[in-house]
Amino acid sequence: MFLADVLGTVVSTVRHPALRGERLLLLGVVAPDGTPTGALRVALDRAGAGVGERVLVVDEGNSGRQLFGAEDAPVKTVIAGVVDTVALAERVVYRATAACD
Amino acid sequence: MFLADVLGTVVSTVRHPALRGERLLLLGVVAPDGTPTGALRVALDRAGAGVGERVLVVDEGNSGRQLFGAEDAPVKTVIAGVVDTVALAERVVYRATAACD
Amino acid sequence: MFLADVLGTVVSTVRHPALRGERLLLLGVVAPDGTPTGALRVALDRAGAGVGERVLVVDEGNSGRQLFGAEDAPVKTVIAGVVDTVALAERVVYRATAACD
Amino acid sequence: MFLADVLGTVVSTVRHPALRGERLLLLGVVAPDGTPTGALRVALDRAGAGVGERVLVVDEGNSGRQLFGAEDAPVKTVIAGVVDTVALAERVVYRATAACD
Amino acid sequence: MFLADVLGTVVSTVRHPALRGERLLLLGVVAPDGTPTGALRVALDRAGAGVGERVLVVDEGNSGRQLFGAEDAPVKTVIAGVVDTVALAERVVYRATAACD
Repeated sequence: MFLADVLGTVVSTVRHPALRGERLLLLGVVAPDGTPTGALRVALDRAGAGVGERVLVVDEGNSGRQLFGAEDAPVKTVIAGVVDTVALAERVVYRATAACD
Repeated sequence: MFLADVLGTVVSTVRHPALRGERLLLLGVVAPDGTPTGALRVALDRAGAGVGERVLVVDEGNSGRQLFGAEDAPVKTVIAGVVDTVALAERVVYRATAACD
Repeated sequence: MFLADVLGTVVSTVRHPALRGERLLLLGVVAPDGTPTGALRVALDRAGAGVGERVLVVDEGNSGRQLFGAEDAPVKTVIAGVVDTVALAERVVYRATAACD
Repeated sequence: MFLADVLGTVVSTVRHPALRGERLLLLGVVAPDGTPTGALRVALDRAGAGVGERVLVVDEGNSGRQLFGAEDAPVKTVIAGVVDTVALAERVVYRATAACD
Repeated sequence: MFLADVLGTVVSTVRHPALRGERLLLLGVVAPDGTPTGALRVALDRAGAGVGERVLVVDEGNSGRQLFGAEDAPVKTVIAGVVDTVALAERVVYRATAACD
């Protein structure tokens, strides 16, 4: 698993029944200090994630299909959770906006 | 899944019955802002993609075989969809030419 | 398998029963000489690892699920062991603090 | 799948019956324009490839085993085809020497 | 498969019965010309490899388990062979010390 920021959305028709109506989110992978690595992923969402949020991503076929809930879907990259906080040692370096309220 | 641009075509005979007659497309992987990362993939096409289009790529064996429709084919990288638009936050940063018509 | 340093923790709800109550550790991947490569992983822990420790990481679905002990969990990255020592040739270049006591 | 140049050969005994007598080819992975990326692979050959040729490589366990023709062999990286031509858009940027004759 | 140099050893307890008593070797991945890429792997050994030797590495779950000889072990990275020679075209660029005797 790794962390990424939801940067935006991708619109593309995938002609496989398992993916009909699924929203595709554009992710920018981040380094431990939160800076972007330059790597991109397009993920399916199972955590209700939105643009601007930091998310926990699983990028392996069988794990993705488990989270997605369909054994034979062409699914690899899935957002497993929206991140509330990231702490380096004891210091919180990322806190979700919603989590501050 | 990730995004890539269809840069061209590769001609190479693959002596496996499942791949007979399949077209091989040369892909350049892109970063979130659309700049090339320098990574290359050769993909089978299940979306009717052409040179110059931005595409959505699945690069995992079981997913690739699902999209390809053959359980025991030597298939990993498959174009799952042609991208219509990519938006960073609310701003559209990529729009397919055909989608403008 | 590879080596990484436990840098901190991630708090994120993963809505999959197999992962309920699991602690998520933030890892920074290291090079052979111990310098960070800049790559990040978020791992489940099966070795009792803590912040500041160097750990041995398995990052493959089936191996992760074996260590985790659940066949159908969405698990890929698992801390398999806390590192006691790393030696380059005969020279010890890393020794766990606890191991010095 | 990706493209690579056959740079040479590796001699190493692999003590697994499925690989007895197999030739190991040293590959240098290339970018879309044919420049080396610096990455190396060692592959089994199922396409009759030789040093100096550009090849199409499959680097996934189940696909490799399909091409190799042995279900339980320790096989991941297999040369699936020798490349005849690579075209960026309409322009041929690589043509096999043999293909020119 | 790829090539790596055995740089040293890692001592870490992995609490999984399949790995009890296994030696963990620290590997530095190399480029085609033998220079280190900076990437590290920790591998199980099935080839009797020692520090200073160049080795052939398989880094895929099912292949690793085949070489290791245990179907359900948490095994991904396995040294499949000690390299005798590496030749770029006709020129030998690496020869094992033992192979010179």
